[in-house]
Amino acid sequence: MSQADFDVLTIGNAIVDVIAKVDEAFVQKEELVKGSMNLIDEDRAEHLYAVMGPATEISGGSAGNTAAGVASFGGKAAYFGKVRSDQLGEIYRHDMRSTGVAFDTPAATSGPATARSFILVTPDGERTMNTYLGACVNLGVGDVDKAVVESAQVTYMEGYLWDKPEAKEAFRLASKIARAAGRLTSITLSDSFCVERHRESFLDLIKGSIDIVFANESEITSLYKTQSFDGALQAIRKDCPMAVLTRSEKGSMVVRGAETIEVKAHPVSQVVDVTGAGDLYAAGFLFGHTRGMPLAKSASLGSLAAAEIISHTGARPEVNLGEYATKMGLI
Amino acid sequence: MSQADFDVLTIGNAIVDVIAKVDEAFVQKEELVKGSMNLIDEDRAEHLYAVMGPATEISGGSAGNTAAGVASFGGKAAYFGKVRSDQLGEIYRHDMRSTGVAFDTPAATSGPATARSFILVTPDGERTMNTYLGACVNLGVGDVDKAVVESAQVTYMEGYLWDKPEAKEAFRLASKIARAAGRLTSITLSDSFCVERHRESFLDLIKGSIDIVFANESEITSLYKTQSFDGALQAIRKDCPMAVLTRSEKGSMVVRGAETIEVKAHPVSQVVDVTGAGDLYAAGFLFGHTRGMPLAKSASLGSLAAAEIISHTGARPEVNLGEYATKMGLI
Repeated sequence: MSQADFDVLTIGNAIVDVIAKVDEAFVQKEELVKGSMNLIDEDRAEHLYAVMGPATEISGGSAGNTAAGVASFGGKAAYFGKVRSDQLGEIYRHDMRSTGVAFDTPAATSGPATARSFILVTPDGERTMNTYLGACVNLGVGDVDKAVVESAQVTYMEGYLWDKPEAKEAFRLASKIARAAGRLTSITLSDSFCVERHRESFLDLIKGSIDIVFANESEITSLYKTQSFDGALQAIRKDCPMAVLTRSEKGSMVVRGAETIEVKAHPVSQVVDVTGAGDLYAAGFLFGHTRGMPLAKSASLGSLAAAEIISHTGARPEVNLGEYATKMGLI
Repeated sequence: MSQADFDVLTIGNAIVDVIAKVDEAFVQKEELVKGSMNLIDEDRAEHLYAVMGPATEISGGSAGNTAAGVASFGGKAAYFGKVRSDQLGEIYRHDMRSTGVAFDTPAATSGPATARSFILVTPDGERTMNTYLGACVNLGVGDVDKAVVESAQVTYMEGYLWDKPEAKEAFRLASKIARAAGRLTSITLSDSFCVERHRESFLDLIKGSIDIVFANESEITSLYKTQSFDGALQAIRKDCPMAVLTRSEKGSMVVRGAETIEVKAHPVSQVVDVTGAGDLYAAGFLFGHTRGMPLAKSASLGSLAAAEIISHTGARPEVNLGEYATKMGLI
């Protein structure tokens, strides 16, 4: 195995977040389930945008946030994702590249516009996402750059990719290439609704070709159709070489074979917007892990990055995470 | 004079802010004067965007911020400004309308893209603006909706409009219509560099057809080519029926005939980004003034709105200013 050019490659839906504050009444009136991610069509997107308040635009997308996080820690990150050749697509590419992420997936020159997610943040900091996938439908096997996959220590993919058949194929191909090159593969289950949609496929995949699974409490219990977190934990222990389970303020756990490592959540003075908490946790963990740090330290880096991201609006770090972690004595 | 449909109409350059944090070294390397607003061409815009870090997009534009501020206070606001029919133009229109501002200036269907300003925020919270005017060059007399001007208690215009001949004509026409309808006219001097560029025209205009001038310390001293704030204050007292002079943390002064009213700055725990401080001060003052409040109270509303805007990134209010002012016992 040659030296890796990249610490982490992430693959996901390239989405510009359109973030607005709303009150609880708005969530009810629009019949939204707080905390969920909803896939919406163009009509629904138009409706929601017409009724929601003024917004801030900031690049997002689960795996995109993770790549930006790895780069912010000082890691070498690459990203595959599909934008359209439009203004939002240019913004997305700028935001990735200027963070230091290698992002060369060609933009679609026709078809739907760059994806956007209307993220409605309630006063409790919880977010409800409404995603119009737009150009993401065009991500396919042709966008999987073999050389990049082969040169990345870990290829990390978001479960959301399974919502589109073409992206799912790209996911499978990348996973195969990474494995053949002796690299690690990783997946985030994305959200419990996503797990509901793809439970059997996810289980097959995890058992067969994934080295590290990331999931939160509701995702892992949904995967195993159980109410019991401990039950799900024991199940994933058998099914996958490593699982990283996040539990918000209850901290996180890393499960590897017989080992179980528990790490506390990093304290946060005020939760402003939880968008990206899981994505940034994964960034910190994968940065530490690919740099050969112990699991507990990698998990602590994940907690630190998650705490930073939920203390402000938007899912991209506002500070240099490498400097921040150094200041906190973690690296 | 019939009852006014609008409290305040503002006219200005419709600009999407592209906000990034930079260090002092970046400002020096790009040979920027900290705190200034620079007009840039497309090449320079491309260069700056390529070298600056990841950004957040949020609607801005001086007079646009003021209109959004008036609406946030619960005032009836209208806006004239030119965007292109592109994604950023749609975002701009959405952000205005969803704040409650009447914004019906048709978008340009050809020509340059919607304007953007690269706003570089240094660690001290100071901002350096680099504005590509784009579609704003297409704002002209045809965009001055006579009925709206006639029905607004105050027509407020930004000095920046004078940087383009067509916009300057629109400004003049609006001012004439407002006067003929017995309404008030108001101008902000925008920035000291803008005053340098248009000193004589501004003086002519102020002496002849403006009721309320807004200026900060550097703008008013630049207008009268003096080092002395007191000297400039006495000069504007003679030249214009009312002047509202803002002095950052030193507070603000309202000068009307022989009267001089001084109001303290509203305390701010942390200055994050000063972009929009003057715009929001004007919003608070004009809201109070058009609702018949005493000058001191109107100035206090201006101070409150300015304090809110500099405590976060971006130049649009993050809270409902009407509710905030009520909570603070001001209205």
